[in-house]
Amino acid sequence: MTKFVYLFKESDQSMRNLLGGKGANLGEMTSLGLPIPQGFTVSTEACTKYYDDGQKINDTIKKQVFDALAKTEKVVGKTFGDNKNPFLVSVRSGARKSMPGMMDTILNLGLNDEAVVGLAKQTDNERFAYDSYRRFITMFSDVVMGISKSNFDKIFDAKKEEKGVELDTDLSADDLKDIVEKFKAEYKKHQGEEFPQDPKDQLIIAIEAVFRSWDNPRAQYYRRMNNIPYEWGTAVNVQSMVFGNMGDTSGTGVAFTRNPSTGENEFYGEYLFNAQGEDVVAGIRTPKPITDLADDNPEIYKQFQEISQKLEKHYKDMQDLEFTIEKGKLYILQTRNGKRTAQAALKIAIDMVDEGLITEKEAVLKVEPKQLDTLLHPQFDPEALEAAEVISTGLNASPGAATGKVVFSAKRASEMVKDGDTVILVRTETSPEDIEGMAVAQGVLTARGGMTSHAAVVARGMGTCCVAGAHEIKVNEDEAYFIVKGKRYNEGDFISLDGSTGKVYGEKVKTIKAKVSGDFAKLMKWADNFRAMDVRANADNQRDAKQAYDFGAEGIGLCRTEHMFFEGTRIKAVREMIVAKSVEEREKALAKLLPMQQQDFIELYEAMQGFPVTIRYLDPPLHEFLPSDEKDIRELAEDLNISYEELNSTINDLHETNPMLGHRGVRLSITYPEIAVMQTRAVIEAALEVNKKGLNVKPEIMIPLVGELKELKYVKAEVVKTADEIIKNSKVDLEYSVGTMIEIPRAALTAEEIAKEAEFFSFGTNDLTQMGFGFSRDDAGKFLSDYYDKNIFDEDPFAHIDQKGIGRLMKIAVEDGRKTRKDIKLGICGEHGGDPTSVEFCHNIGLSYVSCSPFRVPIARLAAAQANIKNPRK
Amino acid sequence: MTKFVYLFKESDQSMRNLLGGKGANLGEMTSLGLPIPQGFTVSTEACTKYYDDGQKINDTIKKQVFDALAKTEKVVGKTFGDNKNPFLVSVRSGARKSMPGMMDTILNLGLNDEAVVGLAKQTDNERFAYDSYRRFITMFSDVVMGISKSNFDKIFDAKKEEKGVELDTDLSADDLKDIVEKFKAEYKKHQGEEFPQDPKDQLIIAIEAVFRSWDNPRAQYYRRMNNIPYEWGTAVNVQSMVFGNMGDTSGTGVAFTRNPSTGENEFYGEYLFNAQGEDVVAGIRTPKPITDLADDNPEIYKQFQEISQKLEKHYKDMQDLEFTIEKGKLYILQTRNGKRTAQAALKIAIDMVDEGLITEKEAVLKVEPKQLDTLLHPQFDPEALEAAEVISTGLNASPGAATGKVVFSAKRASEMVKDGDTVILVRTETSPEDIEGMAVAQGVLTARGGMTSHAAVVARGMGTCCVAGAHEIKVNEDEAYFIVKGKRYNEGDFISLDGSTGKVYGEKVKTIKAKVSGDFAKLMKWADNFRAMDVRANADNQRDAKQAYDFGAEGIGLCRTEHMFFEGTRIKAVREMIVAKSVEEREKALAKLLPMQQQDFIELYEAMQGFPVTIRYLDPPLHEFLPSDEKDIRELAEDLNISYEELNSTINDLHETNPMLGHRGVRLSITYPEIAVMQTRAVIEAALEVNKKGLNVKPEIMIPLVGELKELKYVKAEVVKTADEIIKNSKVDLEYSVGTMIEIPRAALTAEEIAKEAEFFSFGTNDLTQMGFGFSRDDAGKFLSDYYDKNIFDEDPFAHIDQKGIGRLMKIAVEDGRKTRKDIKLGICGEHGGDPTSVEFCHNIGLSYVSCSPFRVPIARLAAAQANIKNPRK
Repeated sequence: MTKFVYLFKESDQSMRNLLGGKGANLGEMTSLGLPIPQGFTVSTEACTKYYDDGQKINDTIKKQVFDALAKTEKVVGKTFGDNKNPFLVSVRSGARKSMPGMMDTILNLGLNDEAVVGLAKQTDNERFAYDSYRRFITMFSDVVMGISKSNFDKIFDAKKEEKGVELDTDLSADDLKDIVEKFKAEYKKHQGEEFPQDPKDQLIIAIEAVFRSWDNPRAQYYRRMNNIPYEWGTAVNVQSMVFGNMGDTSGTGVAFTRNPSTGENEFYGEYLFNAQGEDVVAGIRTPKPITDLADDNPEIYKQFQEISQKLEKHYKDMQDLEFTIEKGKLYILQTRNGKRTAQAALKIAIDMVDEGLITEKEAVLKVEPKQLDTLLHPQFDPEALEAAEVISTGLNASPGAATGKVVFSAKRASEMVKDGDTVILVRTETSPEDIEGMAVAQGVLTARGGMTSHAAVVARGMGTCCVAGAHEIKVNEDEAYFIVKGKRYNEGDFISLDGSTGKVYGEKVKTIKAKVSGDFAKLMKWADNFRAMDVRANADNQRDAKQAYDFGAEGIGLCRTEHMFFEGTRIKAVREMIVAKSVEEREKALAKLLPMQQQDFIELYEAMQGFPVTIRYLDPPLHEFLPSDEKDIRELAEDLNISYEELNSTINDLHETNPMLGHRGVRLSITYPEIAVMQTRAVIEAALEVNKKGLNVKPEIMIPLVGELKELKYVKAEVVKTADEIIKNSKVDLEYSVGTMIEIPRAALTAEEIAKEAEFFSFGTNDLTQMGFGFSRDDAGKFLSDYYDKNIFDEDPFAHIDQKGIGRLMKIAVEDGRKTRKDIKLGICGEHGGDPTSVEFCHNIGLSYVSCSPFRVPIARLAAAQANIKNPRK
Repeated sequence: MTKFVYLFKESDQSMRNLLGGKGANLGEMTSLGLPIPQGFTVSTEACTKYYDDGQKINDTIKKQVFDALAKTEKVVGKTFGDNKNPFLVSVRSGARKSMPGMMDTILNLGLNDEAVVGLAKQTDNERFAYDSYRRFITMFSDVVMGISKSNFDKIFDAKKEEKGVELDTDLSADDLKDIVEKFKAEYKKHQGEEFPQDPKDQLIIAIEAVFRSWDNPRAQYYRRMNNIPYEWGTAVNVQSMVFGNMGDTSGTGVAFTRNPSTGENEFYGEYLFNAQGEDVVAGIRTPKPITDLADDNPEIYKQFQEISQKLEKHYKDMQDLEFTIEKGKLYILQTRNGKRTAQAALKIAIDMVDEGLITEKEAVLKVEPKQLDTLLHPQFDPEALEAAEVISTGLNASPGAATGKVVFSAKRASEMVKDGDTVILVRTETSPEDIEGMAVAQGVLTARGGMTSHAAVVARGMGTCCVAGAHEIKVNEDEAYFIVKGKRYNEGDFISLDGSTGKVYGEKVKTIKAKVSGDFAKLMKWADNFRAMDVRANADNQRDAKQAYDFGAEGIGLCRTEHMFFEGTRIKAVREMIVAKSVEEREKALAKLLPMQQQDFIELYEAMQGFPVTIRYLDPPLHEFLPSDEKDIRELAEDLNISYEELNSTINDLHETNPMLGHRGVRLSITYPEIAVMQTRAVIEAALEVNKKGLNVKPEIMIPLVGELKELKYVKAEVVKTADEIIKNSKVDLEYSVGTMIEIPRAALTAEEIAKEAEFFSFGTNDLTQMGFGFSRDDAGKFLSDYYDKNIFDEDPFAHIDQKGIGRLMKIAVEDGRKTRKDIKLGICGEHGGDPTSVEFCHNIGLSYVSCSPFRVPIARLAAAQANIKNPRK
């Protein structure tokens, strides 16, 4: 028979997956001999079982709960519902990973009309007993039964008014007795039955409520944000109550072994005498700093400090503790590794190495990679933010803080920035034509699109703050305004974006520049020593490439050449190429692009100082380069010296039902090999040029969207012919390689063949995810919210690699590719290359490098190091 | 060292892959002791090598060719280029599968200025010798060097004029000598060098030309149509020349052992005395029926007939022979299994069983499944067709012959048909709204779309003739005309479509009804005995279901319920459902659909007489049900009693960038589970209804587009809850099952999980192909022609399952699905289910059934039988 319930003394920290973090730590502390109110944990497996059984706790689990209860009663010498010495418990959730505030807690469980009398006797404090009872009824009604707390607050407030008192504590025991009766009546009114008097019933119902709360919207959201699978479930901890509100020798508090904000090695926290935990949170009384306890009760302070130190040493990490003092006796209610800011995380990790507490390797594991993000972007002043009005919330698409004047077109953005304004570009959605505007804007706000929409991807690449898919906002680009909740914002009005929370503020909010301390560089250096994978960046221009280099990128894993095609005069040549009626005309237009493209590559090579640069050939469907509204088409037609009708007909011919699945990538090079020839000239000639100056660039030419060996073979032949001729004529040697993206499912499935021609693979996990799942990132936003609500998806497959499906394709490609070409270079250049869990996956399947946007390079470096520490590569 | 060249006497029919059909058969006939002009075959591997080496024949192959040549010279006692007894050869292609007329042939090779003298001496016929030489120069120049034949014809005709003669044969030896000189000069003029005099050079150049012709456009096209891989390559047969033009005791001809048109067991063919093969083809002289040979030369006739009979018995198939009589001696130049009409194929197969020549099993293998197609559709009168003008050519999307008046909308089509017209619906592309028009039309012509475009799929399903993607045609639906090559066709003008060739004729063409003889039924019965897979049909209404039943379908593998949503009044309820603002409103609209949907299913169940019926739940994106132009939107808004703006905004909200990858399939049921609930009611209540009348229907409910277990789990829970409640209330028992399409790559990759919930899998290979390859069938048409031209694709992956990539996904799903659910039912319902090679693949990977359009059911039955005969299932 499965064991679903464990006494604390049967548990230890190795059982975290089964018992949750809180339960495992309570067990661990029990075995360390610390003063822990005893109890037991109902396992996460019981939670899973509860859901599998259609949200029911079966008899086996119930029996095990009651057995554990009986054993605990024996240990503490109290009895459930006893009218002399009643046993009371708290019931709390505790998942594998801490999810603070996301799920429900019930205190004082076990109270009923008998036990309250017992509690009064036992504590010799009738007022306390009935106060505890009314608190329990409120909490049970609210949390377990969903009867809003306000119903009870009204009764309570009426009593205070009746009695003419201000503070809760001014109510007498009799007042509270009366309130309890009224509360029970209120409960009956809502539930149609009496408040449950059997403590065992109370317990089972409460455990169910905790299980249920695993699936509440708060918890769902938190899980999604933190990449916690629904399947894990939560454990439930049932623990003897101790009371911090039994008078002035009692108290309760929270403490950190180090400062969670700065990382300073100082005891940090706060406490209140004569209070329960909820009072500290409610903020009615102002808690005192924990250091005051040294004066208030030196003995307890010393004991607590010793315990804290012991726990920090034991767990080798900064601890976040909750404690209660009941009549002068200290109890530890829970300990866990404390949440901390990025700065604190770095300082603590480095200090602990200096203190000899942990090794450098352990220090590298202590910092959450994605936390580093906050070190790289400016932030709002927290106080100013507090005061500002949130007008809408979208997706936190690219972190950072942005304040500026609203603007609706790239053109106006440039103009206003030239005039000295800071702007925020607001669009229904962005397209490549908006790039210049995005580059000059402080932030980008879109009404449509997901985490990997054009706006999100480009903004992250630029390190620009972006809130995407704020659906409530209705944008009218033509008339230059947007409306949200009935209010209109015109060009020039100020708004602010928080790219880390997705919040949009309807005003200017003050920002502060984040500090990057020296600890950061130190830890990154350690991390680099432990990495097995290289980290490269996705960069399409010199600015981004330099940024990436500064952040430690060891090459460019993806240069999207099409981004180079939009600037100023060259877009005209691109358009001439598209409307060309013959190969000759097309080559003429391409010849105009050649010197510009060549210069692009020279700049990239120089920025990367000889690190490898992977250049992806033209990828998007050609219609992306042409205008879509009549006025622009007429203008362009005039510009190109062709008739409106002719141009319009070309544009119509290029129209596709599903552009994602259309004429793009390698397919363009098959139809128009002359484009690949021009790009090859530029790549090779630029490399020869910079190598003359002493660099040793070995360009990597990457063909996108290959799904079949012969596609690559055909284009590679054109590339090699062109390149070899140039190299031969140059009379100096130049190494280059030709490889492909693996971004079409069929490419992964036929990788053994494709590796015959491909000298490297780079996983394009954006497209691989889209095609593997069969939904486009542009359209999935509309239905994915239903998927999260209904627990069909735990996480966004565009943010984290779906290891089961898409990851399987990647594994197939890695294994099969190596069958043909043992030492094939394997990388990833999709958005996932900067996501820590995806980086770990890439390490585990044996990739040579990851490539991500410049601002994610440090994150990827750390994640790669952690992956190799956890699972060292042979 | 690889052996690239084989003497005929070293070869036999088992070596077909290496030596091509012609070469293998020449070897086989040699070993049978038949009178074969000796020679040798250069293997298909040499062809592959030729291409791998950059279109060069390497020295190894050359050496082997010359060795074989020397041996052959010895056998025949002649010498290349000899001025007394010169050796002359023919050089012909010969692929693994016969590709008549697709590649090049060179006769009389070996002639030069010396050898022609030798030939004159040897034959004592100077005229003949120089005539042979001038023919050789023409053929070599044209076929090998690409110098147009017309250059030589001009010289020849000038000579005839100069001499004042009509017939070639009226020219004297001296005239021909003069012509030869002029021909050589003409050759030099074009090539800049002398006509090659070394026969060995001639031979190598000719072999290269044959290899090169493997990749000419004719051959490419033929391969694609006949599913022959480029990789196979062609062999080259070098064979001693024999001459049918050496006077009246010489002749040449072609014969079939049975009538290839009717299948009658009669000797069939024609011959000419004193002629070479090309003369028969050129049609200058009218050949005589082969039976006349019995009078002309009874001895030779008898010998030839005996050989023919021997070969038919030997190959157990009707033979197509070429022969030459040289000075009274019979030579067999080639034999092969003869091409035949579908009727003939059936008759021959059945007759041969009756004659005891082959078994029933062998007979089943003799008929090409796709040939049956022609037996099921009306055909044009061949003579009328010959005379008609082809105005454009599109894809042969759905076979059949159609003649009718041009019409541009479904509405007008219905009206005109009511008035007694026959019509052809012409659209840029079709959409579900056109279905009614397609149903009443004789044929459908579209300017856009591929073999699996909406028009093509629906037309094939209906058995309606369709030519799709005729790009030259510009359709203006609004003004009801189309223009092709400058000519305008208005509503009411006649055109004709040949759905088997893709040709469009600008006039009325007479049709004849094809005869389906009793042989057809007989062979199908035999086939059914050998099958391991069931064959079902894709049918969405009673008409199609009945048709399918008549064609032998054993169930419905796919009922696309959305097709039921377009008819008359129900489209209004569908639209009400889509614009509903709440679940209640939506349920109200669904309640209107319920009785209609229920009636649909009753009709289907009844048509299938208790065979299983698989019902796929609503699949397409909802915007497909809404109008797109302003006028229609205004009308609908009025109809639905909402404002134009509101409806327009709903339509805009439903807009998707890539609808193929959008909100459709199971995703609809997740957002709107009430749709699945309504469909479940209809499925189950209809089944209960018909079972009352004595049928035993077990509905199979199929959820489309699943990519993740939890999607299916969620929807299945709704389905099961609804179904079980209805069944419980009905108080009778009803079995039903719930399964899923496997059409998303991730579904295949996670099949082991999905099989936990899915009771059956049905492969939706259309979508699986689209997503696996990453191109949509609507858009791929634009670039796939480049893919064929450049030999990147040999065949259309929407017509034949891509076994390497998409097939691998299918195999993964089959194997992994069975791990979870050992006896999971596995089928296919994509378009591929009716394609013989795909059916064979499905058999080989172990599917339980294939499902295809009704008109392909007999084809699938035969293909399934052949697959099981070739690879019997345990």
